[in-house]
Amino acid sequence: MAKNFSTREDNYSQWYNDLVIKADLAEYSAVRGCMVIKPYGFAIWEKMQSVLDGMFKATGHSNAYFPLFIPKSFFSREASHVEGFAKECAVVTHYRLKNSPDGKGIVVDEDARLEEEYIVRPTSETIIWDTYRNWIQSYRDLPILVNQWANVVRWEMRTRLFLRTTEFLWQEGHTAHATREEAIAETEQMLGIYADFAQNWMAMPVLQGVKSPNERFAGAEETYCIEALMQDGKALQAGTSHFLGQNFAKAFDVKFLNRENKLDYVWASSWGVSTRLMGALVMTHSDDHGLVLPPKLAPIQVVIVPIYKKEEELQSINAVVLPMKQALEKEGVRVKYDDRDTFTPGFKFAEHEFRGVPLRLAIGPRDLQNGTIEVARRDTLEKETYQMTDIGIKVRHLLESIQSNLFNKALTFRDDNTRYANSWDEFVKLLDEKGGFICAHWDGTAETEQKIKDETKATIRVIPLDQKPEPGKCIYSGAPSTARVVFARAY
Amino acid sequence: MAKNFSTREDNYSQWYNDLVIKADLAEYSAVRGCMVIKPYGFAIWEKMQSVLDGMFKATGHSNAYFPLFIPKSFFSREASHVEGFAKECAVVTHYRLKNSPDGKGIVVDEDARLEEEYIVRPTSETIIWDTYRNWIQSYRDLPILVNQWANVVRWEMRTRLFLRTTEFLWQEGHTAHATREEAIAETEQMLGIYADFAQNWMAMPVLQGVKSPNERFAGAEETYCIEALMQDGKALQAGTSHFLGQNFAKAFDVKFLNRENKLDYVWASSWGVSTRLMGALVMTHSDDHGLVLPPKLAPIQVVIVPIYKKEEELQSINAVVLPMKQALEKEGVRVKYDDRDTFTPGFKFAEHEFRGVPLRLAIGPRDLQNGTIEVARRDTLEKETYQMTDIGIKVRHLLESIQSNLFNKALTFRDDNTRYANSWDEFVKLLDEKGGFICAHWDGTAETEQKIKDETKATIRVIPLDQKPEPGKCIYSGAPSTARVVFARAY
Repeated sequence: MAKNFSTREDNYSQWYNDLVIKADLAEYSAVRGCMVIKPYGFAIWEKMQSVLDGMFKATGHSNAYFPLFIPKSFFSREASHVEGFAKECAVVTHYRLKNSPDGKGIVVDEDARLEEEYIVRPTSETIIWDTYRNWIQSYRDLPILVNQWANVVRWEMRTRLFLRTTEFLWQEGHTAHATREEAIAETEQMLGIYADFAQNWMAMPVLQGVKSPNERFAGAEETYCIEALMQDGKALQAGTSHFLGQNFAKAFDVKFLNRENKLDYVWASSWGVSTRLMGALVMTHSDDHGLVLPPKLAPIQVVIVPIYKKEEELQSINAVVLPMKQALEKEGVRVKYDDRDTFTPGFKFAEHEFRGVPLRLAIGPRDLQNGTIEVARRDTLEKETYQMTDIGIKVRHLLESIQSNLFNKALTFRDDNTRYANSWDEFVKLLDEKGGFICAHWDGTAETEQKIKDETKATIRVIPLDQKPEPGKCIYSGAPSTARVVFARAY
Repeated sequence: MAKNFSTREDNYSQWYNDLVIKADLAEYSAVRGCMVIKPYGFAIWEKMQSVLDGMFKATGHSNAYFPLFIPKSFFSREASHVEGFAKECAVVTHYRLKNSPDGKGIVVDEDARLEEEYIVRPTSETIIWDTYRNWIQSYRDLPILVNQWANVVRWEMRTRLFLRTTEFLWQEGHTAHATREEAIAETEQMLGIYADFAQNWMAMPVLQGVKSPNERFAGAEETYCIEALMQDGKALQAGTSHFLGQNFAKAFDVKFLNRENKLDYVWASSWGVSTRLMGALVMTHSDDHGLVLPPKLAPIQVVIVPIYKKEEELQSINAVVLPMKQALEKEGVRVKYDDRDTFTPGFKFAEHEFRGVPLRLAIGPRDLQNGTIEVARRDTLEKETYQMTDIGIKVRHLLESIQSNLFNKALTFRDDNTRYANSWDEFVKLLDEKGGFICAHWDGTAETEQKIKDETKATIRVIPLDQKPEPGKCIYSGAPSTARVVFARAY
């Protein structure tokens, strides 16, 4: 199972790739940069979807579906949006193939050329705001709180499973409001939901804040984000929520009669998280033994392995395990009884460990005599023998303990790897020797930000929302600064 | 609400279109033949998805995700598949746009032409079997029972909302088996699940059977289907399940070591239902007053409308309604309390009737005095005044009654519109004057089937599975036949 598997120390990037492929999360397909999400990986994504979807609905959002294709001209309508999105994309130019004249295979039918090319959506602001124009006449039609779960395509040059693929799955919320304040409140609310999900479900601590102008979404007035730190000291943007002002309403002429009976442009937000979260989840918790999954998102939370030689022994074990499994399932625990007779217990132990199952229970003839069961935690790799009495309660406590332990471990790691730099030399040294988040003063200009990026590959990941004012001097230009921002090299 | 709304009698096709648009289910987008599924329509589709997904999982299937794009050459590998699918499709030829030299908008960058064009998936057998080749070595790796929820694109010339759109949403199951028998058993099992869903959730009676060779899926050895009858007497294919034999395994070289340690090609099935079911649902039950939804799939099962003039009256009504709503929700009933103060009760009645809410409860000051509530059923349009006592039980009984009434009504309609033709003249007359399903003898040849289609536009919808042998003569050729098949004009 874990053979030919790199360690983090040896080659972090290879470790990640091995893990994703060998733990059956995803693999590359025959299509350049596009992945196949395998059943085990998809089960985790489905769990993420279902939790997020519940959070969106609890805050009044509904799902809808908009076209995959976007007319090319739509992108030209929002000036910065076209620069950000319409260039590296999949372009549909024809709508028919025909048999090749030489009889070998099929070729594009040049008679079936589209008058206007379609772009496979890289994000849907344009087609959605073109639609909203017909949905909105007055303030009574607002707010519109819509989300869509969809696939999107961005023609990436360098791809990595989950982290950056040509096609990926995501959700994109697109809301319309009567006032600037409401739109900003929505943008901030969704950031809060993403942070809640990251921390309380993925057990992944995140910084919340806004992006610098250079890192803003193309077409946004303000981009809020959650930012996590991976085990190699690189940052990962895990979700974004954009206040779009009236930019898309102006580009697509979406006006409404406000309460004062005056025509005004509609205010907008958009927000999204994607299958990139799968990469973040893997990199936050996993170790050199394989995947580590937080119980709340693990497709299998508990695996039970019977240890036996004779068929009668299995029968006796079944008599104990089957009711226990049923009782656990009744309490909402996701349990698998691995009674496959084609594999040894040792093989099964290794397999489930590698695939990150949070708790493994093993039970053999001696346990039956003693009324005990062996319990192994994936997070600490500790094994302990428990009395079977109240095993359901014990299991639930252990799952809760693993969930909070994973979060605390990741939080400690992040705290240990968040440092302050007060000079350029210190900044460069920290970046090269330690990585991690570096809090430093910045003069607030795009020029300085770009120069720092050019020289070090570090970018401003986030300007934290809870930042305390602290006068200082920009580490690069020496110009005055009012607060520190968080730099890092990033995925 | 229901203004400018055609009746079924006047113009069935217009009635359908009006209904879908005015009940906020879906609308056309700026992209040719592609629809926007609006929140109310999507809520119904989500409900369908969740029920079907549960049924798939209960029978051992897992979800996964495969690429949107398929290399053009993949389609050429399965001879009949390329004819059926690869012609009218969206072709991606380029991966970049650039600023137009004249500064006006953006154009395709001819330097970014793909070496091999990609087709936006019209169905995924080819890319999935290309993937399965690496997943399957021995019989131990089988069966593979995978489903994907996805969008697909078929470049349709004539489109109708939900029934035939360029892009649509669907699920496609793709399974791999060690034996022919297992693959056939799977194909039949999934047909049974579709029939169960259609009848017990959509309240839509369906015929189950196989397609004639002419109507088979491109690449299948046998296509099973469920076939429903719409109110205008036209048939609608609601779901298909295909036994693919070893066709795709051969095309993509997917072999396995069987139990006898011999190399053999893998056996396959594929099966799917799509957003077309939304069209079927609308057309099966709705009437000239608007949408009629079966309670099991209705996003809102019960709407409660307060009737009041003064604010104090509303307060008294709230005091009764809010606990009742909570109690109903606790029992799993989907309830909306429509206490909007911007609309009259009459407007609300019309709106919820038009949108097909199964039960409407109305309560005013006199009801409060009498301990009563007015209950209106959407299916029969009957109104009755009930005592509030045990209203929860009454509501649940009513919902069950509406669900079964809708099914029975549709079944009676289908029975009334299923007729036997014993001669060509009778067949043509029935078809033109009555429509509906026509059971008739057919000589079993593709030629006759094609001629009947050319002359009447009727096709063989299904060769029923539970057909009794009955010797007879083909209505067209007079050649001998062993059993009747079901003809109809179809969507």
